[in-house]
Amino acid sequence: MRSLVAKLASGDVAAAARACRMVDDRRSGVTELLAELYRRGSQAWILGITGTPGAGKSSLTNQMICQFRSESLRVGVVAVDPSSPFSGGAILGDRIRMQEHFEDPEVFIRSVATRGAQGGLSRTALDIALVLGVWGAEVVVLETVGVGQDELDVTRTADTAVVVVPPGMGDEVQATKAGLLECADVFALNKSDLPGAAQTRSQIEMMMSLGAALSPTLAGASASGGSPEASDEPWEVPICSCVATTGEGVGDLLKKLREHRQWTEHSSLGQSTATARQHAGWRNRLRQELMHEFEREHSELAEKIASRITDGDLDPEEGFEQIREIVRRRSR
Amino acid sequence: MRSLVAKLASGDVAAAARACRMVDDRRSGVTELLAELYRRGSQAWILGITGTPGAGKSSLTNQMICQFRSESLRVGVVAVDPSSPFSGGAILGDRIRMQEHFEDPEVFIRSVATRGAQGGLSRTALDIALVLGVWGAEVVVLETVGVGQDELDVTRTADTAVVVVPPGMGDEVQATKAGLLECADVFALNKSDLPGAAQTRSQIEMMMSLGAALSPTLAGASASGGSPEASDEPWEVPICSCVATTGEGVGDLLKKLREHRQWTEHSSLGQSTATARQHAGWRNRLRQELMHEFEREHSELAEKIASRITDGDLDPEEGFEQIREIVRRRSR
Repeated sequence: MRSLVAKLASGDVAAAARACRMVDDRRSGVTELLAELYRRGSQAWILGITGTPGAGKSSLTNQMICQFRSESLRVGVVAVDPSSPFSGGAILGDRIRMQEHFEDPEVFIRSVATRGAQGGLSRTALDIALVLGVWGAEVVVLETVGVGQDELDVTRTADTAVVVVPPGMGDEVQATKAGLLECADVFALNKSDLPGAAQTRSQIEMMMSLGAALSPTLAGASASGGSPEASDEPWEVPICSCVATTGEGVGDLLKKLREHRQWTEHSSLGQSTATARQHAGWRNRLRQELMHEFEREHSELAEKIASRITDGDLDPEEGFEQIREIVRRRSR
Repeated sequence: MRSLVAKLASGDVAAAARACRMVDDRRSGVTELLAELYRRGSQAWILGITGTPGAGKSSLTNQMICQFRSESLRVGVVAVDPSSPFSGGAILGDRIRMQEHFEDPEVFIRSVATRGAQGGLSRTALDIALVLGVWGAEVVVLETVGVGQDELDVTRTADTAVVVVPPGMGDEVQATKAGLLECADVFALNKSDLPGAAQTRSQIEMMMSLGAALSPTLAGASASGGSPEASDEPWEVPICSCVATTGEGVGDLLKKLREHRQWTEHSSLGQSTATARQHAGWRNRLRQELMHEFEREHSELAEKIASRITDGDLDPEEGFEQIREIVRRRSR
């Protein structure tokens, strides 16, 4: 274990691959591996890239990798695929688009599939980001589809999150964007050369003002009061236009993302925001751990109860009561 | 409670609204209410309508309601919105589009928001479907966004599920569709008047053959063997072209959906498929109940552990161990 971590920390690609597999498969020894990795810690900037399907996340990820590589930064990519019963990401065109980076020894790309509800999506994704951080990645890009609770949970744990939005979306997607809104540190208005971009920008602005008015979290940032020092300014979520396929505007977008990072590191409001986000991330991973342990310990019982309910032999509420018993405080 | 259920079963709209609110808020008495509803049971056909954002689910739901109403059937609609921290569905254009049905006393429309990870999305949605079934709905339409684990779990519990796909989607959406593939009893190729429809049809066909080759579940249906009686034919997932905004092709789509229902009710393979789906649905709701109880009993502990990890006072793996302790078998 020690030698694996030492190799990993020296930047060995094979060690990184092995550690990722251990995390992914929850193999024996993974607990010790992670404990050691936590001790070492990661200095990597976790950059979340999310958005609805078709928004252009992969193209943007691709551009980001190019930018970071042009600055000689070492890059990790964790691509979280939507739950797929048979692909595990194998049929993703994304992977093909990123192929040029697969041959770069300073870029490590890893795909994480959800594999059913008990998979612990955000835990696995974050653990792999940690592996890549210890490996020496200065940036870890966390690419997720921004729909669904699990996927949003992943995005929420990034240090800085960019939400990619294409122009010309209907009512239905507005609702989706509402779920994404609180995740966004920066909006990337992608495909900004297409008609409808200006309208989509107004929609996002409207939703942000609506969000600030309705959501205590967002409103809290601007209403935090205290002495109005420059370093205590709330973060104003910018909307950056870009065309990810050509790279247009990506430089400016990256500049804004880096400003956000500066804000979280150097302003007191930014620091407390980052701490709150970390706390929420751990909270969520603890919840996932509970599910994981439940599956390991009580899987048979749950199967039996489900069968009896399905067969009409057991009242559902009695079944639920048996499940509740499992986590009831023992002192009672 | 008895009188509420009696009123509900007599078709009282106010009783339905009250029961839905009780389920939604998990108010005291909800356990007794549900136990009584389970005893009465529902004969409603649960029709899942799902698809990526912008696919046209709401327009199709709207058309379906019109069709069912033209046959004088009583209709329930459960609309599951993507997780939104501040909307709860309020900004959904969908709701406006369906407004004509809001004034029809034989149509009951209810929106379910996810409200955070512990919400028990599929449990709430299915419980509300049960309320509407007891109320006398002959069909309950369950409309969900088909991305994300929770949302897929909801769709999986429908008696019959239609996956709505618009033409001309990119690689990224193919991956999403892969997650949806196993949910689909029927595909609705919507906006089939737009360019790219034929290509999308081929893509779905290709993915289905790929799925049948790689997924044991799908392959199982065709490889089930035994005597080749007509009633034991596996279900061949059809692809129906339609234009939901005009209603074109919706009649044929509904015919296919009803054929699927016939298959689940009258063929032995269909019955066993339906039973397996019910079992999986209960299994999932038991899992959600566990989470719910965990939040109720151990929320403070989890907060404390998360804070200590965030502050660097506790090794994450030790925190996970404390959480695991909660569900460890007591006999140990």
